[in-house]
Amino acid sequence: MTALPELVELREHFRINRAQVIDDISALVGIPSVSALPEHRTDIDHAATWLADRLRRAEVPTVEVMQTAGHPIVWGSWPAPPGRPTILIYGHYDTQPAGPNEEWHSDPFKASVREGRLYGRGATDDKGNLMIPVAVTEAYARLATRPPVGLIFLFEGEEEVGSPSLVDFIASHSDRLRADYAVSADSAMWGHDEPSLILGSRGLVALQLDAYGAPSDLHSGLHGGLAPNPLNALASVLASMKAPNGRITIEGFDTGIRPLADLHERDHPFDAGTYSDSVGIPAIVGDPAYSPVERNSIRPTLDVNGIWGGFQGTGSQMIIPAEGHAKVSCRLVADQDPNEVIHAIRSHVARHCPPGVTMEVRSIIESSRAYTIDPHHHGFSMAREALAASYGRDPHLIYMGASLPVAAIVKSMLDIETVFLAWEMPDENLHGPNEFLRLENLDRGLMVYADFFRRLGEQAHEYESDE
Amino acid sequence: MTALPELVELREHFRINRAQVIDDISALVGIPSVSALPEHRTDIDHAATWLADRLRRAEVPTVEVMQTAGHPIVWGSWPAPPGRPTILIYGHYDTQPAGPNEEWHSDPFKASVREGRLYGRGATDDKGNLMIPVAVTEAYARLATRPPVGLIFLFEGEEEVGSPSLVDFIASHSDRLRADYAVSADSAMWGHDEPSLILGSRGLVALQLDAYGAPSDLHSGLHGGLAPNPLNALASVLASMKAPNGRITIEGFDTGIRPLADLHERDHPFDAGTYSDSVGIPAIVGDPAYSPVERNSIRPTLDVNGIWGGFQGTGSQMIIPAEGHAKVSCRLVADQDPNEVIHAIRSHVARHCPPGVTMEVRSIIESSRAYTIDPHHHGFSMAREALAASYGRDPHLIYMGASLPVAAIVKSMLDIETVFLAWEMPDENLHGPNEFLRLENLDRGLMVYADFFRRLGEQAHEYESDE
Repeated sequence: MTALPELVELREHFRINRAQVIDDISALVGIPSVSALPEHRTDIDHAATWLADRLRRAEVPTVEVMQTAGHPIVWGSWPAPPGRPTILIYGHYDTQPAGPNEEWHSDPFKASVREGRLYGRGATDDKGNLMIPVAVTEAYARLATRPPVGLIFLFEGEEEVGSPSLVDFIASHSDRLRADYAVSADSAMWGHDEPSLILGSRGLVALQLDAYGAPSDLHSGLHGGLAPNPLNALASVLASMKAPNGRITIEGFDTGIRPLADLHERDHPFDAGTYSDSVGIPAIVGDPAYSPVERNSIRPTLDVNGIWGGFQGTGSQMIIPAEGHAKVSCRLVADQDPNEVIHAIRSHVARHCPPGVTMEVRSIIESSRAYTIDPHHHGFSMAREALAASYGRDPHLIYMGASLPVAAIVKSMLDIETVFLAWEMPDENLHGPNEFLRLENLDRGLMVYADFFRRLGEQAHEYESDE
Repeated sequence: MTALPELVELREHFRINRAQVIDDISALVGIPSVSALPEHRTDIDHAATWLADRLRRAEVPTVEVMQTAGHPIVWGSWPAPPGRPTILIYGHYDTQPAGPNEEWHSDPFKASVREGRLYGRGATDDKGNLMIPVAVTEAYARLATRPPVGLIFLFEGEEEVGSPSLVDFIASHSDRLRADYAVSADSAMWGHDEPSLILGSRGLVALQLDAYGAPSDLHSGLHGGLAPNPLNALASVLASMKAPNGRITIEGFDTGIRPLADLHERDHPFDAGTYSDSVGIPAIVGDPAYSPVERNSIRPTLDVNGIWGGFQGTGSQMIIPAEGHAKVSCRLVADQDPNEVIHAIRSHVARHCPPGVTMEVRSIIESSRAYTIDPHHHGFSMAREALAASYGRDPHLIYMGASLPVAAIVKSMLDIETVFLAWEMPDENLHGPNEFLRLENLDRGLMVYADFFRRLGEQAHEYESDE
């Protein structure tokens, strides 16, 4: 292995190759790899193949597209130099559906660069962010023949549907995944010039409620007052799950919640007015017993993600509909058990469903637990130093509101921790229309990852190496 | 005018011409005259023209398709013989939308005769039923050169959207509508071998609720606990409108309800088990302070007819949606004022909408009041006698749950009452998939109408005639 390049050389490399990295992200955004929709299965395969080829172009010596019961996993390996740690780089090449097409200002599946931002579904979550460690690996390969640490790449295609195949994959291939710890290239960053590292993320359950009344729609005049209405019933059950102040009122829902360390104002700067303005809402809402930051990070949530039933066209149709449906998801916190939460919701629905209506509750994704990491973990500390060096300030240490199920899975199955290092920002419309990636974060991310790898490679390895 | 034909001659005429009447109904069902959907405007015009031609074929001397601000009205006139009353025959040639196509066993807009039933959208409501007085008029024209009473035909094309042009039409053309009373060929019949006449019908308001949160869908993890959710809000507001037992809890909603005469078991035979089985529900529901028949006829209702918002596809999308919508309609009873009801609902929504969400309420049809008729009215009595003669039993005198806005309009504008005489049965899937008309009711209806006209024509005219 040749001498490690200086950061200034890496910076020059990224400057010269910037257009290529943007082209790479654009190419991947251009493949509509929506994991939730079966009609995109060939796009999923296409994205996986493209990504594997991209890793090979980055000179990763072993790369495979590996099949699972669901969507394939792109795996790659570059063994560690002697005495150096191996890190497992996690990311996902699948995306959420585009959502309402008319709300996008440009084609969601055709990258569009405007005013320093790259727009498109998956631009930041996670196609743009997963490309950062790939480009950094390539930079080290070009400038120093290889990266300063061992790397295992694990890019899955089912993150947006709850990673249903990940557990089986890890169980079957633990020998290919031996690492000192994981780094997730799917993660949030607090803000411009405000670096952050994640102490914890929320878990997730997502359910569908299916409500049934009569076998057909009924005339609301001839049957009104007698026939049960599944839409009224659905509204009633959904409303019963939360108090007007936003507190979740489902019995048994919050069993096992572990109080976390106090959240310090320094680490969680939050101004309600600035936040409300940034997302365009008149005011923040939620359970007043907790601070806004707590509500958004270490407290569970329950949101109706979608609802439908009956007549939805122009004008009116006076029916008592035969059925109604709703999708509901909850963000969970340490140490809520997802199965207990689902059980509590099922029991609640059974207790609150009005007579005459049948209501079924089914899980529609693989559930996940919340995750927390000790801030003294070595990889965490190195990432913290790399961020501090780049930004000139210590990162906020935050609990994030989103869910990163891989961390809990990897912890329980491979017994390693996960450091989250990526640049998805809350205003970048993840999962909504006009998702975008800030190109300034791309530039920043390349340098932070390069420095992170470098620090890991320069330090004496304090972990047992499997190599 | 030649001598009136005997009933036996009329029966023979209808037997010979039965296939033609069924063909006529089929032809009209085959024109998808859905009033709520703008894309069917040419079908509306087509249906009106077809119906006017059909009246001319029945030898009605003056027939016109008359334009309104909305859909045209088919008007026809056959002046009364001296000393005989004139009746205004009301019906509508428009239909509800077909609804979910996959739930129909045959094309909703292609009549299909199976096992003594004619299936298709509008088969019973109201295309089949309006054809009855037309065919009876034609029978009298053929057998006796003219019907025994004066007839004015008023067939509108907007009944299913709340008759928004009817008031203006009547105001502009009251000279063409002078009659002793109206007969509606749009009405319900209690059951097989159980004739009924309508003492009253419910009024109607229909509203759309539009709920808005952030301007775009938000990631439910990054924003969960802070951002208002318009779908949770919509559920909460809709749930707040009714108690778990079905009672409407909107303040000011039931102002002015007039207690009606006791409903006699004899007139309203009702068996909850039979009813539940017939519509396929496990049990009847509703406010236990009132009997099932009261709840279904002289008590108001509130039903969610449709709801939609957020992600409705396969799988999951973890969003806090930007908006949600619901259609809600209420059946009103005497003497609720529709405007006061709308005002009460608006105020209720304003009081119950959770913070952070904006909720708008707008009326989506022309509202209508409930209607009641004195059972001693002459036309009512003659219809009662004709039904009794045909069925061999006195009809049930009922308050119906559905809305027939024309009666309240005609009462207030022309100062005449409306007798309801038609054969729409509660199990015939009005407004739902697989709507049908029983052909045995068609045979029965032709004879009852023929007898009804005959009785009116034979009796001394006790009304002032305008002829």
